[in-house]
Amino acid sequence: MVPMWMAELASRSGVSVPTIKYYLREGLLPSGEATGATRSAYDESHVRRLRLIRALTDVAGLRLETVKQVLDGIDGAASWHDAVGSAHTRLGSTGHDDAPPSSRSSERVRRLLEIQEWELAPDHPQAAVLARALDALDAVGHPMSDQMLWLYAHALRQLATSEVMSVHHDEDGNTIEADVEAAVIGTLLSEPVLLAIRRIAQENVSRRLAGSD
Amino acid sequence: MVPMWMAELASRSGVSVPTIKYYLREGLLPSGEATGATRSAYDESHVRRLRLIRALTDVAGLRLETVKQVLDGIDGAASWHDAVGSAHTRLGSTGHDDAPPSSRSSERVRRLLEIQEWELAPDHPQAAVLARALDALDAVGHPMSDQMLWLYAHALRQLATSEVMSVHHDEDGNTIEADVEAAVIGTLLSEPVLLAIRRIAQENVSRRLAGSD
Repeated sequence: MVPMWMAELASRSGVSVPTIKYYLREGLLPSGEATGATRSAYDESHVRRLRLIRALTDVAGLRLETVKQVLDGIDGAASWHDAVGSAHTRLGSTGHDDAPPSSRSSERVRRLLEIQEWELAPDHPQAAVLARALDALDAVGHPMSDQMLWLYAHALRQLATSEVMSVHHDEDGNTIEADVEAAVIGTLLSEPVLLAIRRIAQENVSRRLAGSD
Repeated sequence: MVPMWMAELASRSGVSVPTIKYYLREGLLPSGEATGATRSAYDESHVRRLRLIRALTDVAGLRLETVKQVLDGIDGAASWHDAVGSAHTRLGSTGHDDAPPSSRSSERVRRLLEIQEWELAPDHPQAAVLARALDALDAVGHPMSDQMLWLYAHALRQLATSEVMSVHHDEDGNTIEADVEAAVIGTLLSEPVLLAIRRIAQENVSRRLAGSD
């Protein structure tokens, strides 16, 4: 097999040579196979990893520091399920506002999880992320009603089943690394799809209501 | 009525005096009423605006530049519907990746809008945002199936009706400015709620499937 050099890796992945070198130094991209004092050979796994990094930064809008943590989670996970848990845990803390949530919002989240029969690991930050998001709506004087919260949980529970099944199905027979990558992508890179469709749907509903007022 | 000075505005809003002065200089916060050469009096609208700015930066994770555009949209809108449209248009461009989407993804989005009977203004960036998000999934080798896209559209359409109705209902009898603020908050500040519930739901579905494997 003809080895892939840095220049080809750049053209295949669409990432410039200086940026690839930066990712290598920062440990985001594994080293190639050394084939001499100054040359390394790369393979398809490097192309795929570079595309994943760009997708996480450009589309999911993550900072490189968070991308590194997500990739470490992918590389260290033993199974598809572990990787989903690990990635979600690492993504839980946004770095924006890690103050503890109010006890009122924490209690609302606890009840929501109980009613949905959802379990979270004790150190899992998503419960705190959710409670802080509810606090923020309270603080601006627009609390989310319990009714809306249940509607979201109900709708997202149904979607989650289809989402997880579709990844399971697609990746049948793949390596664990590929499965894990698919799970992370399934959550992260589909978030902009979800939010864009939501805005379009809201705008159309709002226009129809304005028309009928 | 006793006037509210800068120090009280800071303690009421939880935003420090230097930060308030910075927001005044940058035009994010309207000036108070001048009551002398060096003093200005503030009111409840300033407290509310400061809480909104912090919510948009800390919870929604927006850059100050985008917050300014969203606030200009709120201040300039003549109606609830105009404000939703204006805020969504301003939020459409993330600044991360404004390359034109592929014609394949644009065509998929066009078909989705047609099937859902959703209309978008010609200069509306959400269609391009959605197409670019689909391109990103294609680029990392995990395209979103048409089936998942229809499931999202179906679920989000149902949620949008409840969301928009709940804002309409809550704000009955309020000023347009308050309605408009509620519409923007309804979309933006509830996004973290939606995404946190989604991650929790996915992790639980994934754990159950792992247990039954």
